[in-house]
Amino acid sequence: MIMDRIPGMEGLAGRRVLITGGLGFLGLNLVPPLLAAEAEVRVLNRTLDHLALSWLDHLRAGRAVEIIQGDIADPERMPGWLDGMDLVINLAGESGAVKSLRQAQTDMQVNIAGHLNLLDAIRVGDSSPRVVFVSSRLVYGVTGSIPVHEEHPLRPTSLYGLHKLTVEHYYRIYHQHYGIPYTILRLTNPYGLFQLPHRRHYGIVNRFIMAAIAGETIQLYGGGPQLRDYIHVRDAAEAVLRASAEERAVGETLNVGSGQSVSLGEVARRIVELAGAGRIEDTPWPEGHQKVETGDFLCDTRRIEELLGWQASTHLDGGLRETLEGYRSVLP
Amino acid sequence: MIMDRIPGMEGLAGRRVLITGGLGFLGLNLVPPLLAAEAEVRVLNRTLDHLALSWLDHLRAGRAVEIIQGDIADPERMPGWLDGMDLVINLAGESGAVKSLRQAQTDMQVNIAGHLNLLDAIRVGDSSPRVVFVSSRLVYGVTGSIPVHEEHPLRPTSLYGLHKLTVEHYYRIYHQHYGIPYTILRLTNPYGLFQLPHRRHYGIVNRFIMAAIAGETIQLYGGGPQLRDYIHVRDAAEAVLRASAEERAVGETLNVGSGQSVSLGEVARRIVELAGAGRIEDTPWPEGHQKVETGDFLCDTRRIEELLGWQASTHLDGGLRETLEGYRSVLP
Repeated sequence: MIMDRIPGMEGLAGRRVLITGGLGFLGLNLVPPLLAAEAEVRVLNRTLDHLALSWLDHLRAGRAVEIIQGDIADPERMPGWLDGMDLVINLAGESGAVKSLRQAQTDMQVNIAGHLNLLDAIRVGDSSPRVVFVSSRLVYGVTGSIPVHEEHPLRPTSLYGLHKLTVEHYYRIYHQHYGIPYTILRLTNPYGLFQLPHRRHYGIVNRFIMAAIAGETIQLYGGGPQLRDYIHVRDAAEAVLRASAEERAVGETLNVGSGQSVSLGEVARRIVELAGAGRIEDTPWPEGHQKVETGDFLCDTRRIEELLGWQASTHLDGGLRETLEGYRSVLP
Repeated sequence: MIMDRIPGMEGLAGRRVLITGGLGFLGLNLVPPLLAAEAEVRVLNRTLDHLALSWLDHLRAGRAVEIIQGDIADPERMPGWLDGMDLVINLAGESGAVKSLRQAQTDMQVNIAGHLNLLDAIRVGDSSPRVVFVSSRLVYGVTGSIPVHEEHPLRPTSLYGLHKLTVEHYYRIYHQHYGIPYTILRLTNPYGLFQLPHRRHYGIVNRFIMAAIAGETIQLYGGGPQLRDYIHVRDAAEAVLRASAEERAVGETLNVGSGQSVSLGEVARRIVELAGAGRIEDTPWPEGHQKVETGDFLCDTRRIEELLGWQASTHLDGGLRETLEGYRSVLP
């Protein structure tokens, strides 16, 4: 079941939209509703993965999408990519908290430098697009078991989270100095269709689903007692589009989550049960993982509900079932 | 009057100290007390300015100081520079809030990338030095007229302040993951001897002093009503050394200021009066300056007083007079 038209998105009709990192997990999920809203879509991605391209071809369903291979850190080509754009949905970057510490300098260049290049190009360029930047709940760090609202102190435990935070500040500062209109969305743990199956260093729920489908063992570090807020990627995509269409979202930083929390162990058990495949193994924490681990996370979603009238609508069991069935049909 | 021996610094005797950015304003002021404490001093600086070198030669007073020209972003040479060091006093970087916005990418590379390189070299290297990182009150941004303690929200208004903040987080994260012992000092507005006279994009009090000495006009944007906390560089250097010598400072973030506030206009008037030269001109705010302007800043220094027993001891009038006389004798 692929999301198509979303009510209230009429404002996006005819708007020219650049999705950076558009061949990624969230990017692919944005293509159908953007096309359904009659937006013109330009996808920019650093690499052109064959499976991602074939998924995009399926998702665009005969409608036109411009695909560009390029890096947002490219100062020469960025002005051309931005030319005429009304909206930039900025998803570019390398995900993965543990990975970010294993390759610190690379993470800095990929997850900071390119974003500053994008902002500088908007600052000096002729187009004045709005930008929606998708950040992460990992900017908060260890929060304990209270619902975390947007004013919570920001102490990321990984370079990935820190670099997201630095880019959030870039947007705030460039808005203040140059009037660039932005919205920041802090996403919890998304799951759902169209994450590349070999990208396993992020997306814990999808990783469990891939393992179950393949009949493999799901490794649950320390039993997986920590609570997390899982959001179906279709709900996340809808939040991105509502923020893109709503003028009042400019200058705002908003949590995007389901507002519900379930333990990681419980999710693993449901996946194995729904899949009728795979098995769970409790293993000790690998060191690199334990140190970036944030413990329980409960998301306070009141601000986005009040401002945009958005709420996640996919229940976890239904979302997991649909995702399992979906991957079984779309994986090669 | 150059600070020499500081009581209580015996713990630094025989310790090998790398000062990155050691030919800069604060770096030069650290050399005499470090040598007086019988530390071995290695100065690393990106450029070798002739005037700075001649000042260093004067300050070392015949004692040995190793001078290295190099960039902390250099991954090949950094391990050698760190070899055998017990302490790193990390002052490297490019100062200036307005300038940071005029050259965003450069500021990012200079004020972030090099610091990550330094930390990565410590992480994988054989030496295990403590690191004291000198950050800035500019990490706070606009605070209003309340005394600002270290837990105040962090919303820098410039890339300079933001990049300092990002590096603070690097230290916290590398401490958590790899046990690298660090102390962060957030410095207010330092003034005093040994800032290069042609470096005028930072150090507002010294800039006023240079202008008065040269009989030039001091431009006071909007009349200079904003309160600031000015600290004599000798006091700042003493705070750095106390933090370096005291084990309890590890893992701490501490404000370093005088705890007193005076308006910028008042400081300009005192300088002109003490110098018997120069004049003040009220001018409108240039746009680039107004946007990074933080307004009043009052520094809460209770934490460093309690932890290290340190307090600034130089009164503003005496400090300004001494600085005026000093520059008149050391400038070529």
